[in-house]
Amino acid sequence: MNFRSDNEVGAHPAVIAAVGRAFTSGSAFSYGADEWTQRVERRLREVFDKPDLVAFPVVTGTAANSLALACCSPPWGAIYCHPMAHIAAEETGAPEFFTAGARLFRIDGAAGKVDAVKLAAALAQPVYGVPHFAQPAAVSITQATECGTVYGPEEIAAIATSVRRHGLKLHMDGARFANALAYVGCAPAELSWKAGVDVLSFGATKNGVLAAEAVVFFNPELARDFAYRSKRGGHLLSKMRLLSAQLDAYLADGLWLDNARHANAMARRLVAGLTTLSGTALLYPVDANEIFVVLPARVQDALQEAGARYHPWPSDRPGERAYRLVTAFDTDPADVDRFLSIAESA
Amino acid sequence: MNFRSDNEVGAHPAVIAAVGRAFTSGSAFSYGADEWTQRVERRLREVFDKPDLVAFPVVTGTAANSLALACCSPPWGAIYCHPMAHIAAEETGAPEFFTAGARLFRIDGAAGKVDAVKLAAALAQPVYGVPHFAQPAAVSITQATECGTVYGPEEIAAIATSVRRHGLKLHMDGARFANALAYVGCAPAELSWKAGVDVLSFGATKNGVLAAEAVVFFNPELARDFAYRSKRGGHLLSKMRLLSAQLDAYLADGLWLDNARHANAMARRLVAGLTTLSGTALLYPVDANEIFVVLPARVQDALQEAGARYHPWPSDRPGERAYRLVTAFDTDPADVDRFLSIAESA
Amino acid sequence: MNFRSDNEVGAHPAVIAAVGRAFTSGSAFSYGADEWTQRVERRLREVFDKPDLVAFPVVTGTAANSLALACCSPPWGAIYCHPMAHIAAEETGAPEFFTAGARLFRIDGAAGKVDAVKLAAALAQPVYGVPHFAQPAAVSITQATECGTVYGPEEIAAIATSVRRHGLKLHMDGARFANALAYVGCAPAELSWKAGVDVLSFGATKNGVLAAEAVVFFNPELARDFAYRSKRGGHLLSKMRLLSAQLDAYLADGLWLDNARHANAMARRLVAGLTTLSGTALLYPVDANEIFVVLPARVQDALQEAGARYHPWPSDRPGERAYRLVTAFDTDPADVDRFLSIAESA
Amino acid sequence: MNFRSDNEVGAHPAVIAAVGRAFTSGSAFSYGADEWTQRVERRLREVFDKPDLVAFPVVTGTAANSLALACCSPPWGAIYCHPMAHIAAEETGAPEFFTAGARLFRIDGAAGKVDAVKLAAALAQPVYGVPHFAQPAAVSITQATECGTVYGPEEIAAIATSVRRHGLKLHMDGARFANALAYVGCAPAELSWKAGVDVLSFGATKNGVLAAEAVVFFNPELARDFAYRSKRGGHLLSKMRLLSAQLDAYLADGLWLDNARHANAMARRLVAGLTTLSGTALLYPVDANEIFVVLPARVQDALQEAGARYHPWPSDRPGERAYRLVTAFDTDPADVDRFLSIAESA
Repeated sequence: MNFRSDNEVGAHPAVIAAVGRAFTSGSAFSYGADEWTQRVERRLREVFDKPDLVAFPVVTGTAANSLALACCSPPWGAIYCHPMAHIAAEETGAPEFFTAGARLFRIDGAAGKVDAVKLAAALAQPVYGVPHFAQPAAVSITQATECGTVYGPEEIAAIATSVRRHGLKLHMDGARFANALAYVGCAPAELSWKAGVDVLSFGATKNGVLAAEAVVFFNPELARDFAYRSKRGGHLLSKMRLLSAQLDAYLADGLWLDNARHANAMARRLVAGLTTLSGTALLYPVDANEIFVVLPARVQDALQEAGARYHPWPSDRPGERAYRLVTAFDTDPADVDRFLSIAESA
Repeated sequence: MNFRSDNEVGAHPAVIAAVGRAFTSGSAFSYGADEWTQRVERRLREVFDKPDLVAFPVVTGTAANSLALACCSPPWGAIYCHPMAHIAAEETGAPEFFTAGARLFRIDGAAGKVDAVKLAAALAQPVYGVPHFAQPAAVSITQATECGTVYGPEEIAAIATSVRRHGLKLHMDGARFANALAYVGCAPAELSWKAGVDVLSFGATKNGVLAAEAVVFFNPELARDFAYRSKRGGHLLSKMRLLSAQLDAYLADGLWLDNARHANAMARRLVAGLTTLSGTALLYPVDANEIFVVLPARVQDALQEAGARYHPWPSDRPGERAYRLVTAFDTDPADVDRFLSIAESA
Repeated sequence: MNFRSDNEVGAHPAVIAAVGRAFTSGSAFSYGADEWTQRVERRLREVFDKPDLVAFPVVTGTAANSLALACCSPPWGAIYCHPMAHIAAEETGAPEFFTAGARLFRIDGAAGKVDAVKLAAALAQPVYGVPHFAQPAAVSITQATECGTVYGPEEIAAIATSVRRHGLKLHMDGARFANALAYVGCAPAELSWKAGVDVLSFGATKNGVLAAEAVVFFNPELARDFAYRSKRGGHLLSKMRLLSAQLDAYLADGLWLDNARHANAMARRLVAGLTTLSGTALLYPVDANEIFVVLPARVQDALQEAGARYHPWPSDRPGERAYRLVTAFDTDPADVDRFLSIAESA
Repeated sequence: MNFRSDNEVGAHPAVIAAVGRAFTSGSAFSYGADEWTQRVERRLREVFDKPDLVAFPVVTGTAANSLALACCSPPWGAIYCHPMAHIAAEETGAPEFFTAGARLFRIDGAAGKVDAVKLAAALAQPVYGVPHFAQPAAVSITQATECGTVYGPEEIAAIATSVRRHGLKLHMDGARFANALAYVGCAPAELSWKAGVDVLSFGATKNGVLAAEAVVFFNPELARDFAYRSKRGGHLLSKMRLLSAQLDAYLADGLWLDNARHANAMARRLVAGLTTLSGTALLYPVDANEIFVVLPARVQDALQEAGARYHPWPSDRPGERAYRLVTAFDTDPADVDRFLSIAESA
């Protein structure tokens, strides 16, 4: 009963097997000139229905986000995001590092989503071309958000309208993009470039691969300098197939969406059970695979005693104790049911 | 008959299997708190006979070198290395990026090795404490060198003497450390910290793993800020076991040295055959697994026609055409013999 | 009747004369080894009653703030300040540039002052030593604030308590330190290091010199790398006496405080007159030499027609129009009286 | 008899007077919107016969060089210069800092000048578009060089040919541009943009002003981001007239060239006398206002005893002792004659 993080789980057998095959099938061109890397790009072009997109595998989400943002913002740029965004609340200055000093501005909003009206107001300030001010360069939104909620296409488009009006770029941190897409149920294009996204950190690590993400540029012009930035960041693998073989298998036969659907279903199953219990309350709607829930002390104590694992989460209301539960591609329904059974008996 | 690069080969089955096991054995703590990462550090402590060393897996040699150097040099530091050093001739400003602007100074020397006397002269210049000058901070040597030669312990010690005298740090780019060690035949400690090395980029990618290196700090104090630097560089993997499981298998049962010994032996076998041919000449002694050799046109033509693959290499003498041949952990002796047979018949 | 900015005024004759003398009195040692630079440090030691302080002249406030903060924060550091702080709202990423990527966190508070309770809460978060988070490194407060208000010694001390508890450094952006000191009326030490300030950007440009500031380290250990940072930022003047001669004259005979007292007195004179008019309202208390005031349309129109100059200022209340008036060391009382007379007649 | 440096001398009375007038003539627009700054740009357009040039005053040569190069090179760029170039031998990583990590490559050449043939060979290497290599971005030459020699227009053009062929930019560090121009005697345009220079660090500090340089972009497109770079480097003065008033007077009535001619004449006068003495030898031709000369011990001892001041200079030949003598705009011919008289009597 480990619901700590989708970072802690293993990998799907099909992905593991693909890596094994890639490294026992003889030599391959280095630095991404191999067949797997090329096939990943082709697959992403098909998945996103965008024949000119450009994609690069990287080993972490921090690298994906930071490299993507560095392609969107000059060193004197301003990047707007939600205060809870991973790039702003964690990542230890990685965007600042890769952009050579861009400045983060935080735009609040309910349930982890950037408020489009507040963003519009921030971007309307008369700072353009004035050397005293960081120059608005990019907006970054997280999909699914750090609160487990999901932006719908129209919510993205509302943000993109301000982004476009002022000539900025729109980045999406899609560490849980698959879970978001599985929730919305639309085409990948609808939830990304058709809604106005310029560059996507396409997550896979949390959804069944060993460790791999892709930076997907829907606007290929933005990718012009990516290779230099990646190389000097130490992110151009000589044996790039390690990442590409994972993504190749992840994208084949819809594995990525199957994995996400399962994780989301397990979250819904948990929520369905938990919300029937007295004293529980959800902090946010559960759109994807993360649950933020207030648990009464009796439930918490019983679960801890039974060995269930999950993280506490700050609650705004004094005396209340909230927790985060995360499901994953391999969450066992039996674990969910056992968890709920313990909680119900508490 | 692919002798292009030890970057292009696959991985040892034991390493592949270890990765598979690591990702099918249930959940693991994230960000390097897992058992594999801890075991890798223990193994390195044993291998190097240094119970207080600190080690961090990273995904590329560029990351290893740049992060190591950033721990050795302030932004206003000077880093000394051979003009052919990978950090100076390639890597696209990665050391400058990670150090926030340190300056490279190139110290020439025969066969890819920093000349200890020239280094001593450079470090003796009266720049210490004078704000007009980049402050000497680190020396970086490559083992084996970019010319395929190997520093012996006493050669390292001669460099380390100057390094110590002026309070600098000594970094070793050990992308092919195993091949160097297999050549010298001493204990790992003799070729590293006992000779004066403070921090080692411990290569594995070129020697039988999928993609993994380790930054090994013999001086643990130097590692104090590594985690922050690594995180903001996008090099702290949530599923770190991807790298650690490789290194764990690589270090187990002497696999790393067996692989290197094989690669070196294949290089010697190639050299033994090639040097019997008229018109050939070695550019440098062949200590490790790289051969830099002048081939007469008839030999080159015959090899190309037979499908042998290797890179041209700049030669200083007009009219002469030189090439680089690299052997690897999995080089087939039959391929070597076939290569030589074609060359001999040309 | 120019009340646009204390940046737009000239310089005090004594300062101009001192510069002239410095450059007609023969040769001088370069790069700050001259007598003026040394005398400025001595004067500051006396003024602040701190014999071990270390001071460096620089040419702009942006340089002073950024260099000071770079001495307080590593590249992965977090710097806390008010959202209106010049370093956060303007300065175009200069602190990020000089620190090599430190991250700004904004702590709100009334009238331009960092709220000590909110700061304490922010600094109490469990991020220390965790590589996912920017490491709390410095707090920066502005004296006088961007709202023209002044922190008293006890307000600074309240902030410094949190700063000390967590091992951070306290920076004061003292672009208008003289005006603040003139308002409080205490000893310079009381408003700086005795209250917990580690490093002060000691402003002079806005208070009667041509262009010069000083970075004053009360904690000399913090200044260890200043010279390298300054040099590589292009801020080590070969003819440093250009700045030092200004500061020397500025500090001599209390000129700096006389200038500030005059500016503050002119602000009070303006306020006294304006607040008697119907329809006016102050946005903030007028502690120093800046006035933020709501003016009724009739007054605004009359003043504009008469050629008075000052900037509009954003007001939170719809329909209300606010303005900023700034007085300076050379504000003519007759100008103030004429301004008030026009306003009263409107 | 101070021949240590043109950094140590005072300023021309006309420049001092202009600064005084600028700061006693009432208020002025801040941040370079003042009349002096605009007039300086107009004057430079006339002087260089280039109506579309764009110019920015800065306070140091390090700032001028670093900001200029940052406008020419991306963070992954390569900058080529002579090993003795101030940007490479001193300046403590300032170009690396402002470019966010560009890499310096040193191209040797006689008498402090970049060898055009070696440069052409370096730029012909097949690194363009290959992410493993720093991308050739700019060449920087120093005029007059660190050896006191001067590039003629055709020497600059030879370098510019390679620069143009490969799409790089040509920067000139003109800390002593006036001295070089006075030596060559051509039009300023001939020695700069007509010979292929894209951006010039136009020195004044060493030639009679207090402290001021200008970054002169002959290619205005290159200047697009200058204001942001300058601001975040702390180089956008609120009271910019401090710098501009100096440059305005410096450029008026040919003062800049008169000053340089005088300094050069004094150098020639020194050389004429010194070279008649037995045991002396010039290290380099004396084109501008710097003399690098071997002095016999008897001469050196006599001069030291008489209080003459100048710096030792490294000599390549063992046993030989060389020195650097620098003349300036205000060098007194009587001092020169006295110096020579002492040397002759030794």
